[in-house]
Amino acid sequence: MAVGIFDSGLGGLTVLDAVEKRLPEVPFVYLGDNAHAPYGVRDAEDVYQLTTKAVERLWEAGCDLVILACNTASAAALRRMQESWIPSDKRVLGVFVPLIEALTERQWGDNSPPREVAVKHVALFATPATVSSRAFQRELAFRAIGVDVEAQACGGVVDAIEEGDMILAEALVRSHVDALKRKMPDPQAAILGCTHYPLMLDIFQDALGVDVAVYSQANLVAESLADYLDRHPNMLGNGVERKFLTTGDPKLVSARATQFLRRQITFQSA
Amino acid sequence: MAVGIFDSGLGGLTVLDAVEKRLPEVPFVYLGDNAHAPYGVRDAEDVYQLTTKAVERLWEAGCDLVILACNTASAAALRRMQESWIPSDKRVLGVFVPLIEALTERQWGDNSPPREVAVKHVALFATPATVSSRAFQRELAFRAIGVDVEAQACGGVVDAIEEGDMILAEALVRSHVDALKRKMPDPQAAILGCTHYPLMLDIFQDALGVDVAVYSQANLVAESLADYLDRHPNMLGNGVERKFLTTGDPKLVSARATQFLRRQITFQSA
Repeated sequence: MAVGIFDSGLGGLTVLDAVEKRLPEVPFVYLGDNAHAPYGVRDAEDVYQLTTKAVERLWEAGCDLVILACNTASAAALRRMQESWIPSDKRVLGVFVPLIEALTERQWGDNSPPREVAVKHVALFATPATVSSRAFQRELAFRAIGVDVEAQACGGVVDAIEEGDMILAEALVRSHVDALKRKMPDPQAAILGCTHYPLMLDIFQDALGVDVAVYSQANLVAESLADYLDRHPNMLGNGVERKFLTTGDPKLVSARATQFLRRQITFQSA
Repeated sequence: MAVGIFDSGLGGLTVLDAVEKRLPEVPFVYLGDNAHAPYGVRDAEDVYQLTTKAVERLWEAGCDLVILACNTASAAALRRMQESWIPSDKRVLGVFVPLIEALTERQWGDNSPPREVAVKHVALFATPATVSSRAFQRELAFRAIGVDVEAQACGGVVDAIEEGDMILAEALVRSHVDALKRKMPDPQAAILGCTHYPLMLDIFQDALGVDVAVYSQANLVAESLADYLDRHPNMLGNGVERKFLTTGDPKLVSARATQFLRRQITFQSA
């Protein structure tokens, strides 16, 4: 049995990279729905249908534990999937949950009323689609009170990363951090709410300053998975399976993935 | 009879502004399809249906001459509309045509083979959707040979302008110009292929340098319209009608339009 990691495209590879570094012994299957990416422009029903189909594909591949390494899918589909669709012998984790857990210092399943948390001023950097969804602010409000969240929609950053123009990506990140600081001069914490942004973690940290705690989803998900596997040691089998599946063109997706993570990655058809 | 100006949202107001300055006596009706904006995320059939419906609405309002002040609609729908849908007593002009005419120094209706033009290195700045459509490069290739076009998808700029953060918009424009120059160090001409960008014309010119001819669609469309009305003096009636229609919420759209053009604009329901 392996861990399934799903994303609409290649951004989830940063989550996979962090998981591999944190848990080098863990077998995994990555599934990119490149044929239907990006999800950010689709409506919620469409995202739900595509996401459940992809998760079923990973269950077929032997992954009883699936990570939705996709903010759009996590925001638009995970709550509905958890309420009525996921069988009791399977687990689906989103990229949002570990982030909210880290920020509020409480477990996701803790349904007590919202309470005050240490961090009062939070900057959220995400794609325009994730910012408009307000999913992060909504989930946070269920658990914490008195937290001021200022969101910056970082238009252009994902495109620049996908084109491989890291000079442009850095310039855009710095401009978006400046824009955020004009709205919120002293954030205590910053959330990178897009799976592409871990590639720009050092730039965000540098632009924000050393006093700002920068939360990267990739690292938090890897940490959360390590914790989960500690508590469920029989969840996974032996043998380091590493498989990359795509609904798109494997040759094209492999080339782009190799450029994206700066190491050789070979996809096959899902 | 008035000139109809159509856009999916508010960007077309820059075209309207240029038309008003060039032709202060001309009556017009502006129609923003704000209920369905942005068009950039829709497929071609969807854009065609929405655009033809909007143009019919402007015909009903007495506008026999309609300008599609929307790059997405011009790229995805205008050619098809002109081939089979527009009756002989109506005219629909897109924002692309005057641009191609200016760059190639020939009339749109001139169907002779493509030939060499003076400008060899052209920078195109547009939204990611317009860049991916390749409509500009395709139309140019019908008319000119030996022109090298380098496109820069300026992610984030429209969002920043719509949020009213002109400091961020300026920073993003400068970063995108830098990125373009890494790909094409010495462009002779630059095309602003998005109706929002005339608001950033001075920044583009400054970042590109005084030797680069910057083509703004708003000014070119106004010039082209002035030329057309010179040749068809009976096309318009008397009386300076000025009407702003929207498929969205008139109060909300009026507030955003007023911020966008920095003068009072009042929309009513289409």
